[in-house]
Amino acid sequence: MINDKLSSWNDGPVKRSIIDFLESTVEEGPNFVKPADRIATFDNDGTMWVEKPAPANIYFVIHNFLKAATEDPSLGKKQPYKAIIEKDMNFMQLIVEQDHDALMSVKEALAYAWGGITPDEFEEEVKEFIATNKQEKFDICYTDLVYKPMIELFNLLKEFEYRIFVCSGDERDFMRAFAEKTFGIFKENVIGTALQFEYKNGELKRMNKVLGGISLGPGKVEHIFAQTGRLPVFAAGNSDGDIEMLNCARFKLLLNHDDAEREYFYDEGAEKALGTANDEGYTVVSIKNDWKEIF
Amino acid sequence: MINDKLSSWNDGPVKRSIIDFLESTVEEGPNFVKPADRIATFDNDGTMWVEKPAPANIYFVIHNFLKAATEDPSLGKKQPYKAIIEKDMNFMQLIVEQDHDALMSVKEALAYAWGGITPDEFEEEVKEFIATNKQEKFDICYTDLVYKPMIELFNLLKEFEYRIFVCSGDERDFMRAFAEKTFGIFKENVIGTALQFEYKNGELKRMNKVLGGISLGPGKVEHIFAQTGRLPVFAAGNSDGDIEMLNCARFKLLLNHDDAEREYFYDEGAEKALGTANDEGYTVVSIKNDWKEIF
Repeated sequence: MINDKLSSWNDGPVKRSIIDFLESTVEEGPNFVKPADRIATFDNDGTMWVEKPAPANIYFVIHNFLKAATEDPSLGKKQPYKAIIEKDMNFMQLIVEQDHDALMSVKEALAYAWGGITPDEFEEEVKEFIATNKQEKFDICYTDLVYKPMIELFNLLKEFEYRIFVCSGDERDFMRAFAEKTFGIFKENVIGTALQFEYKNGELKRMNKVLGGISLGPGKVEHIFAQTGRLPVFAAGNSDGDIEMLNCARFKLLLNHDDAEREYFYDEGAEKALGTANDEGYTVVSIKNDWKEIF
Repeated sequence: MINDKLSSWNDGPVKRSIIDFLESTVEEGPNFVKPADRIATFDNDGTMWVEKPAPANIYFVIHNFLKAATEDPSLGKKQPYKAIIEKDMNFMQLIVEQDHDALMSVKEALAYAWGGITPDEFEEEVKEFIATNKQEKFDICYTDLVYKPMIELFNLLKEFEYRIFVCSGDERDFMRAFAEKTFGIFKENVIGTALQFEYKNGELKRMNKVLGGISLGPGKVEHIFAQTGRLPVFAAGNSDGDIEMLNCARFKLLLNHDDAEREYFYDEGAEKALGTANDEGYTVVSIKNDWKEIF
């Protein structure tokens, strides 16, 4: 019975509509999708795992900046290290407002931290961060905060011969470091904001240059098409940065974080998506009502 | 019997070494490769199909430029249209020498031809070109000139749970238009020189900007890593532009075009690869001796 695949989902119209849709795409009829076209894309932060109080990728960057400032105390007198050490929210606000000097200081710090290292070295750093840092509310590793219902949905999609891609504004290679173990998909199925590499003297190195823009909003669609040559049949997201990706897909799943007790309750950054969900034909998943278990 | 998978290959040390290598990577022991790491990469022109007298991608560009000059005769007075119409080899030489004016004229013509169109429109153009143009020596479609032994090798690799990627300096989306039918791999398994896309007003369009450089030489390694997050275990090529990719792999297959009768006899563009094959540990495939059938 196909229902059993989504055992962490409560029975109801949402679960039913997912199964009905997928079944209709593999059966002869007007909804049939030929196997080659069966692509499903999932946002990462807030769709695959907890993104509050901030996405793990952000903590990884902060963690690394603090480490650098410990190793070289003179950095602590400079931005953005100083602001992080002093928890200076005014500086954080400058970044949000895209103030030029603030952004440049972050860019320089990123280059200092990860420019010129090999992908293997970077992957080791991510793995160490994941292994040694805990999310503040749940006090467990970030990768233990992956939503079980989404992994079940992955398995159901695979059953129907869908190829699954996780696509996020996060750095692609940050996600690739844990995606295979955590999501059960290969590295090539992870799409995200990416740095350019340089291959020289028999060695690959990370360059301090973002290639192809940030994978958010319209950029998400561009990145998905570049990686796969297709647009998704099935897409899942949870924020306004996912709207363009959702609107490209036939089945548009929007996760609503409405469970303060078991996860978080918020709609910041998702106001537009939630507000237009009806008009756009999004299937809204209420974490509180539609998920029996979360982790 | 695993041998039967490569039925277009003559028995001998080359065929034997391919099978032995692949078997050793899936059996317990020092050569074992875990499934996630089983990536194989193949060059396209001259490795997967005939590349003489020039690669099909080049003919596609010429074909399109001629079409444009027919539709708008004023173009025929300008470069590069004029040179193509008049078969002006001096101009071609200027391109090879990377003369600035010559290159710029080609760049402008490419932008005129394909800038701002949708990926679907582009794919249709490629398909029409492939369906209506024949290779001059064999007088059949380019996609009928795919090497049968290589497709058999694909099937053998799949048997051993390798994931196969075709990686060429050709335009990625040119190859993606026929790869699924011709090579039996998905579009996301095709890597190549790529244009940036722009997603605006609900539509994807091709931009006149190459993203991440040309996928040749070191660029091939950079493109492979960006797409897959790995370097290949098994790689196959036929020219100096494949050297870096081959040198990243554990099994390095180099195709030698030494069969004037059944295909072509040449070593231009492959002098260095063939010259250092022994030192670099390349397994050289003689088309003449190692392939029972070619197409």
